[in-house]
Amino acid sequence: MKELNVGVLGATGAVGQEMLKILAERNFPVKSLRPLASARSAGKMIRFKGEDVPIAEAREDAFKGLDLVLGAAENDIAQRFAPHIQEAGAVFVDNSSAFRLREDVPLIVPEINPEDAKWHKGIIANPNCTTIVTLVAVAPLAKVSPIETMIASSYQAVSGAGVAGMRELEEEIEAGLKGEPYAPKAFAHPIAYNVIPQIGSEQYLGYTSEEMKMQNEGRKILHLPDMQVSCTCVRVPVLRSHSVSVVLRTREKITVDQARALIAAAPGCKLVDDLTNKVYPMPLDTSDQDLVFVGRIREDLTSDRGLNLWCCGDQIRKGAATNAVQIAELLL
Amino acid sequence: MKELNVGVLGATGAVGQEMLKILAERNFPVKSLRPLASARSAGKMIRFKGEDVPIAEAREDAFKGLDLVLGAAENDIAQRFAPHIQEAGAVFVDNSSAFRLREDVPLIVPEINPEDAKWHKGIIANPNCTTIVTLVAVAPLAKVSPIETMIASSYQAVSGAGVAGMRELEEEIEAGLKGEPYAPKAFAHPIAYNVIPQIGSEQYLGYTSEEMKMQNEGRKILHLPDMQVSCTCVRVPVLRSHSVSVVLRTREKITVDQARALIAAAPGCKLVDDLTNKVYPMPLDTSDQDLVFVGRIREDLTSDRGLNLWCCGDQIRKGAATNAVQIAELLL
Repeated sequence: MKELNVGVLGATGAVGQEMLKILAERNFPVKSLRPLASARSAGKMIRFKGEDVPIAEAREDAFKGLDLVLGAAENDIAQRFAPHIQEAGAVFVDNSSAFRLREDVPLIVPEINPEDAKWHKGIIANPNCTTIVTLVAVAPLAKVSPIETMIASSYQAVSGAGVAGMRELEEEIEAGLKGEPYAPKAFAHPIAYNVIPQIGSEQYLGYTSEEMKMQNEGRKILHLPDMQVSCTCVRVPVLRSHSVSVVLRTREKITVDQARALIAAAPGCKLVDDLTNKVYPMPLDTSDQDLVFVGRIREDLTSDRGLNLWCCGDQIRKGAATNAVQIAELLL
Repeated sequence: MKELNVGVLGATGAVGQEMLKILAERNFPVKSLRPLASARSAGKMIRFKGEDVPIAEAREDAFKGLDLVLGAAENDIAQRFAPHIQEAGAVFVDNSSAFRLREDVPLIVPEINPEDAKWHKGIIANPNCTTIVTLVAVAPLAKVSPIETMIASSYQAVSGAGVAGMRELEEEIEAGLKGEPYAPKAFAHPIAYNVIPQIGSEQYLGYTSEEMKMQNEGRKILHLPDMQVSCTCVRVPVLRSHSVSVVLRTREKITVDQARALIAAAPGCKLVDDLTNKVYPMPLDTSDQDLVFVGRIREDLTSDRGLNLWCCGDQIRKGAATNAVQIAELLL
């Protein structure tokens, strides 16, 4: 198998570090690894497959000789370096939202639309984490009958705000136990013992940018340009797995038994659905692994073509790093 | 004003203790107070208006001379004592779910259907906490145009499992910080850093008893016998305020501006809706007070007669104790 020279842009963040872990775990054919980060981290060492690899500064000329760059940085960084990554001849698999809706950029969940990798022009986008978790759960149903509408409420882990988000929840809880004040930095409000019904900034008719991603990215990934999605994204005091409560309506009726069978057979999904025995997906059980757990499947009581379900998946892994490495695997 | 001899059944629980606090706070005309609890607590003292009042054992003959009994006990206790409360000539305002759907028992949220108190026959039921919080938010809209369907996902505080639930979250977090194991008792699964998508037991087509309450109790309170509700109830690591993400469809379209004006003017509601400035209802801000905060009001993107909103209210107060005392005030 061909071996690639691989760069990871934003290698010191939560997603970047997980990408290194997953490249090793999945035995991705890495000829050489080039971790890239800000000047602050340049020169430090980072572990990869038991060896210390020096971190290089992310600069415009830092991509020469690379075949593949996995992007784990913010939009502005991704936008700044994308032309230079392309100039260097590397394929850019980017986790930021900067390119996701561009017509010349495929947006891929490998279990759902791997064929879209074929028409890439140097950039492939990795979808939003909550969108990935939800779509892995509902795509097996959409393949049988198109999804017309979806109403989703999310329960999103603090890892969505990176290492800083996870540290903040832990520090805030410890400060509370000591009776000390704590000023939130990663989030706009306290997250310990609280939930915050805003993720992202105001974007469209009172919906946030995060909430609109499920409709906009979902349409592109599922090839359902008319799918309508009303989403409410909420941060909860959970460390790293996102959960989503979904009510979807398909063009034709899908029964609960059909849905269970479809999800049980679908790649990337694990059916975890036995309410009688208190068995259903939960964040603690779905952290640090790659499957999306799906349960609480039942008929929507407000429609004769609706289904209600609950899904959970690790935001850093399947919601970001694993999905990006899976996309890279499509390119081999 | 007439003064009443008041009993509180289950006076030592989270809701019972809050009832005592609220009777005092609202200056309810209490001639005498009789706190009732299990034999284990009998004889102990409980504070009311700065005085120590002895707890009496809840027995069949314990209700003589009372005019009003506020029930804060489980269904089996409520059912066992209801006939004896009625025999004693007292009105029973009960917070359990035992009598809520009985045709001869009014089910009341005083801001919504106070007129139903008129036809009581000795028992008035206090609705489920999540149902109260949600209905206070949506009733102002339902008065303008009937709600046809409602899809709700809840974010419910551990106080719903009483004092034991609150203690469990705190103990579990402390055990985690010390690296000690912790065996959940109040909940079926760990709740620290987790969310649990089951409240109540399996009841109907895969929905739990808690989830069906919003439809069954909602229909009765709003006088909308055909309203269809799909609900997903989820426990989150929050101490005492419940939040609900709601998408409702009305018979006629209600605009976002109309909805905001209706909610701002409605009794029991506080409009807290300014996403631009990161202002919306949150559990920490709504605990230990009586209003239901409503925000994130926007058009449902899946329907032309739908609205999306987010509401929070204190589960122990407006969700239970305050609502019960407000019902008692209707009887004066």
